[in-house]
Amino acid sequence: MAHKFWTDDVTELLRVREGFSLREVDPGSTPGTNANKRGGQAELAWSAQELRELQEKLFAQSRVGARDRVLVVLQAMDAAGKGGVVNHVFAQLEPYGLALAAFKAPTEEERAHDFLWRVEPHVPGPGLIGLFDRSHYEDVLIQRVRSFAPPEEIERRYGAITDFERRIADDGVRIVKIMLHISPEEQAARLLDRLGDPEKHWKYNAGDVDERLLWPEYMDAFQLAIESTAAPHAPWYVVPANAKWYARAAVQRIVISELQRIGPEWPAVDFDVAAERARVEATLGLSWPN
Amino acid sequence: MAHKFWTDDVTELLRVREGFSLREVDPGSTPGTNANKRGGQAELAWSAQELRELQEKLFAQSRVGARDRVLVVLQAMDAAGKGGVVNHVFAQLEPYGLALAAFKAPTEEERAHDFLWRVEPHVPGPGLIGLFDRSHYEDVLIQRVRSFAPPEEIERRYGAITDFERRIADDGVRIVKIMLHISPEEQAARLLDRLGDPEKHWKYNAGDVDERLLWPEYMDAFQLAIESTAAPHAPWYVVPANAKWYARAAVQRIVISELQRIGPEWPAVDFDVAAERARVEATLGLSWPN
Repeated sequence: MAHKFWTDDVTELLRVREGFSLREVDPGSTPGTNANKRGGQAELAWSAQELRELQEKLFAQSRVGARDRVLVVLQAMDAAGKGGVVNHVFAQLEPYGLALAAFKAPTEEERAHDFLWRVEPHVPGPGLIGLFDRSHYEDVLIQRVRSFAPPEEIERRYGAITDFERRIADDGVRIVKIMLHISPEEQAARLLDRLGDPEKHWKYNAGDVDERLLWPEYMDAFQLAIESTAAPHAPWYVVPANAKWYARAAVQRIVISELQRIGPEWPAVDFDVAAERARVEATLGLSWPN
Repeated sequence: MAHKFWTDDVTELLRVREGFSLREVDPGSTPGTNANKRGGQAELAWSAQELRELQEKLFAQSRVGARDRVLVVLQAMDAAGKGGVVNHVFAQLEPYGLALAAFKAPTEEERAHDFLWRVEPHVPGPGLIGLFDRSHYEDVLIQRVRSFAPPEEIERRYGAITDFERRIADDGVRIVKIMLHISPEEQAARLLDRLGDPEKHWKYNAGDVDERLLWPEYMDAFQLAIESTAAPHAPWYVVPANAKWYARAAVQRIVISELQRIGPEWPAVDFDVAAERARVEATLGLSWPN
C-alpha cells in the first residue's frame, strides 16, 4: 500500500542545531510533509503499530537485562497541545511501557530542595518511555520570566541541567526534548475555544492570560534554555504546532526515530525452550478436582 | 445503529455474593452475552468512547475539588490475560487518568515492612483510575500456598485487608476487585503458545509451571481470599477468562458501570466566563516582535 506522508526526515528538519533561532521557526509551517489534516490523522493511526512494536521490544529486552530507555521532555506555552500529544501519541503505547510525570508548580517541600530533587525519582527505568509533561525546564522558563529565582541562580541551573542530562544519558537514558511551538494568535483562538465550550471550561486557567502577556519574555527564555542545553546526547526539537495534526505526527515520528536508533530486539531467553515445553506437556495429563 | 452485546447486566452476573463458590464458575462460559469473538472485539471498540468520556469527566471534576476515584485490583493465575486487559481495556483511557502499579515479588526492604506498606503510596488520588496488576492479595495467595508466612499471619491479613479497604473507601475510593478465571487446560495452551513463538519467549517464566502444579491449592486460596474480603464497598468480580474477548469486554463494562455509579459531570467553574473572554480578546490587538 502506497504510504508517503513524510517527504523528508522530519527529525533532521526539526532538530535544533548550532546557531538556532526560535524567531525563525514559523509555528504555522509543516516541514517535511505536503499533507493536510486528513493525511496527518491517517499517518498517526498508520504509524501506531510501528511505535508500539518498537516500544514492546524495548520493554521486552529490559526483562532480560537491557538498560535502554527513553525520556521525552515536553515543554510549551499554555494551550500549545501537550495534552493532545499525550492523548493521541503516547496513548498508543502499552500502559506498562509509559511512565508519565506531570510537573505542576512546586510544592513547599519541593521548593525547599534543589530544583532537580523532584525530577530525579521520575527518570524512567530500563525498558520504559518516560514522559515529562513540563519538567525541570520550568525552572529556567517561568522562573526566569517571573523572577522567581535570582538571575545568578537561573544561570547556575543551565549548567546543572546539562550535568544532570549528561549523567542520566551516560546511564543509558536517551533524552529527547520537544518544544511545541504555537503562535500567540493560535493560543488566543484556543483559549477562546475553551471559554466557548462548557465541556472545556475546566481546562481554562485565568493565569494563562497573565503568562500570555509575557509572550516575548517567554520566547527569549525558551531561546536561552534551548541554546544553553541542546547537546548531541540531549537534543531539542522545536515542533511547529499551530496545526495539531502536524505536531502529533511529528512527535510520533521523533519518538519512533529515537527508538529505531536504539534498535530493540525480541530478547533471546536463557532457558531451554524444548525442556520447558516438555515440563508443561507433562502437566497436561494431571486431573485436578474442579 | 443497533448494538446489543450484553443481554443482561454482566456486572450483576459476575459480582460475588454470599455463598459464592469458585468451583461453580465455568472459566469457559460467557455470561450475559450470546456474542462471539468478533462481537466481543466490536463491543470493546464500541464502548471505548463511553469509557473515555466517563474517565475524562472524573478527571475534570477532580480539578475543581471532587474526590472520587476508582481502584481496580486485578488478580489471576499466570497467563490468565491480565496483560491483555491492561493493553486493550485500560489503554483506552487517557494516560493522565490512569495510575498503573504492577506489584512484583517484594524486595528486601518491602519484606521488612507490613505487607500493606508498599501498597499505600499507590492508592489513586482524586480523579484517577488506579490499577493494581497484582496487589496486596498476593500476600494471601502465593504467600499462603507457598507458606511464605505462618498461618496466623495469613489469617491476620484478611482482617487487615478488610480494614485497609474500608478506610480508603471511606475516603472516596471506589474499589473493584477482579479475578480473571481460566481453566488449567487453557493455561497450558497459553504457556505452550508462548513457548512456540520466539516473540513471546520473554513472557514465559519457568516458575509458572511450579505454581501451576499447585492449581488446587491456588483455587482454595482464591476462594478464601474472595469470601473473606468481598464487601459492598469493595466487591469481587470473578470473570470467566478462557475467552479473551469476553474477559476484556466484561472488565470494560465493570469499570464503566462503576464510573456510572459515580456519575461524574463536566465541572462548573468559579470564574466569570464572559470576563475571561474579554481579557483574552483584549490581548488580540497586541503586536509582539516575532
